[in-house]
Amino acid sequence: MTVGDWLDEVQWNAQGLVPALAQDAATGRALMLAWMNRESLATSLREGRAVYWSRSRNRLWRKGEESGHVQLLKEVRLDCDGDTLLLLVDQLGDIACHTGRLSCFDRSLEDGRWQATDPVVRDPNEIYAVRPADRDSGHNA
Amino acid sequence: MTVGDWLDEVQWNAQGLVPALAQDAATGRALMLAWMNRESLATSLREGRAVYWSRSRNRLWRKGEESGHVQLLKEVRLDCDGDTLLLLVDQLGDIACHTGRLSCFDRSLEDGRWQATDPVVRDPNEIYAVRPADRDSGHNA
Repeated sequence: MTVGDWLDEVQWNAQGLVPALAQDAATGRALMLAWMNRESLATSLREGRAVYWSRSRNRLWRKGEESGHVQLLKEVRLDCDGDTLLLLVDQLGDIACHTGRLSCFDRSLEDGRWQATDPVVRDPNEIYAVRPADRDSGHNA
Repeated sequence: MTVGDWLDEVQWNAQGLVPALAQDAATGRALMLAWMNRESLATSLREGRAVYWSRSRNRLWRKGEESGHVQLLKEVRLDCDGDTLLLLVDQLGDIACHTGRLSCFDRSLEDGRWQATDPVVRDPNEIYAVRPADRDSGHNA
């Protein structure tokens, strides 16, 4: 086996991407879904933190690069089809979402409506001292 | 608000799909990622079980339709971008994967290799009494 073999076992889609779910390693809370390409996955492993591929900005996105809300990698899993990654992470700041919430999955369907369920841990305006376009968001864009 | 409004709030992609992560409601274990379209999500809510859209078979896929390993819906969440669903489920049979394992995320990256970590709960040949093409799999195909 050479170094890159494990990257070849991932079934990258036509755009060279796979979805990656970040889950809190300690609590099991599902935090967010973003996308990775070969470079971002290799970089994640090398740096020990989640590095996604921003589809909107077309560049590597080191999660927390603006906010400081870095996701330290504890474990990386691959599914049976090889086309989805699961990242078990230590979420710094207890905030994964650009809205200032712990999890991006912050709405629950109740009585035919999406009801906000999660509190804002910190005001995004305090987190980001940059213009909105540079925010640590757009993970699914 | 009319009945379908909550479906309109989901940001379906160009193929009319969004990824949906199934997570065990009791244990927090991440089980699998599959895809949903409007019809499958509406059907899931109506029937109280996870109903995905099979991209390989181009039809509704009632999870567990062959295996009996139905995912009873406990809660449905939507993320901040509106383009990813999180399903909190009660996984019947403690098997979500067509390989007979609890979770589809059954390989962990260790020492530069994907190492199988999860035991087979039940032999797939016992689960599926049908030809392989009809198996309750292909969720990411």
